[in-house]
Amino acid sequence: MPFHATLLTLYPEMFPGPLGVSLAGRALERGDWRLETFNIREHGEGRHRLVDDTPAGGSPGMVLRADVLASAIDAAVPEGDARPRLLMSPRGRPLTQGFVRELAAGEGVVVVCGRFEGVDERVIEGRGLLEVSIGDYILSGGEMAALVLLDAAVRLLPGVMGNALSGEAESFEGGLLEHPHYTRPSVWEGREIPAVLRSGDHGAVARWRRAEAERLTRERRPDLLLPRR
Amino acid sequence: MPFHATLLTLYPEMFPGPLGVSLAGRALERGDWRLETFNIREHGEGRHRLVDDTPAGGSPGMVLRADVLASAIDAAVPEGDARPRLLMSPRGRPLTQGFVRELAAGEGVVVVCGRFEGVDERVIEGRGLLEVSIGDYILSGGEMAALVLLDAAVRLLPGVMGNALSGEAESFEGGLLEHPHYTRPSVWEGREIPAVLRSGDHGAVARWRRAEAERLTRERRPDLLLPRR
Repeated sequence: MPFHATLLTLYPEMFPGPLGVSLAGRALERGDWRLETFNIREHGEGRHRLVDDTPAGGSPGMVLRADVLASAIDAAVPEGDARPRLLMSPRGRPLTQGFVRELAAGEGVVVVCGRFEGVDERVIEGRGLLEVSIGDYILSGGEMAALVLLDAAVRLLPGVMGNALSGEAESFEGGLLEHPHYTRPSVWEGREIPAVLRSGDHGAVARWRRAEAERLTRERRPDLLLPRR
Repeated sequence: MPFHATLLTLYPEMFPGPLGVSLAGRALERGDWRLETFNIREHGEGRHRLVDDTPAGGSPGMVLRADVLASAIDAAVPEGDARPRLLMSPRGRPLTQGFVRELAAGEGVVVVCGRFEGVDERVIEGRGLLEVSIGDYILSGGEMAALVLLDAAVRLLPGVMGNALSGEAESFEGGLLEHPHYTRPSVWEGREIPAVLRSGDHGAVARWRRAEAERLTRERRPDLLLPRR
């Protein structure tokens, strides 16, 4: 069974969107992964299919209703489906490359895209949603975050990248940011490719790259060098 | 002059994509912000418009050429254009809500979307690109990251959100994750809305929300409570 992504959203027209292009798009066409969307609004209340209401206790904004979202989840996800149920949310577990690898190694994901001020807390508990955050900033909704999560996961699926990338020398894979890259022309606007990269000495190249990766990580992201919590 | 986003990409068909829908899409139609895309491939070399080449020093993958990308940037960005020139990259400065606010307060952004193994380091230096990362994971290219950055910035532009959200009570705005939300029905699947939120005591509601925000931040993201580097 290919990796199976089920999305719950108020904007199904956002999908596959950019995931229908390039690597992920060709993989989708080949059937290397599968994407289905469910419109939460179809489970809204009344003639106007209302999905949100004002927050208990007052405050601006609207909250996605527990009963509406639960009904959408129950319709979209068959009983016994073991895939993780994610809710894209800035309060969530930070997405890391290790977490992406875990997800990509599984059967797929159910992804709930929130909108408005937030989602009624009770549906998070009642349907076992795992909140996931792609970063410390606020988006207009969970859809963009879902696109990011799926793009990161899909490129790791068997057959998707081919031999385009090794996947090993990339940022984070060794706990470091990636070293600088250079290609032709050997001189550009007076700037030369570092001599060691043109030396043909593979050991020296590897040592230089390692040292540069360590330098960049120390300068830019010393937090990556700390022991993990 | 409205906020002006200039994108350099090998996949212009990915834009506006999800940014053409909902809040950001309506704001784009109204002219509250402006989006233009430039195809890097038009500056590629020869009949096949080649934009990349093998990495100096060897390794799998391909590197986006400095001369090609510089030519695309020079064509897309007028001389004297003061907008920041961003390169979406996992090695970059982490995007935060504070950084998004800075960007949204300016004239706009030039965003370069990398692909392949990376971008020739010399064009980053030679054209003053600021590397920006949306998170510690690897995407198939910078396009998805650019969508995220723009979505986060556009929602902060004058007129875009209307009174839909206060923007003040959200995660990160006070250095804390957001408190839980509840709305009708008052009982759902046996789960009640916390009594304090139905008390009508605004002071008690505010204190409960603050305490919940602090609890969630302590439990999930103690790093946010540390003094900033």
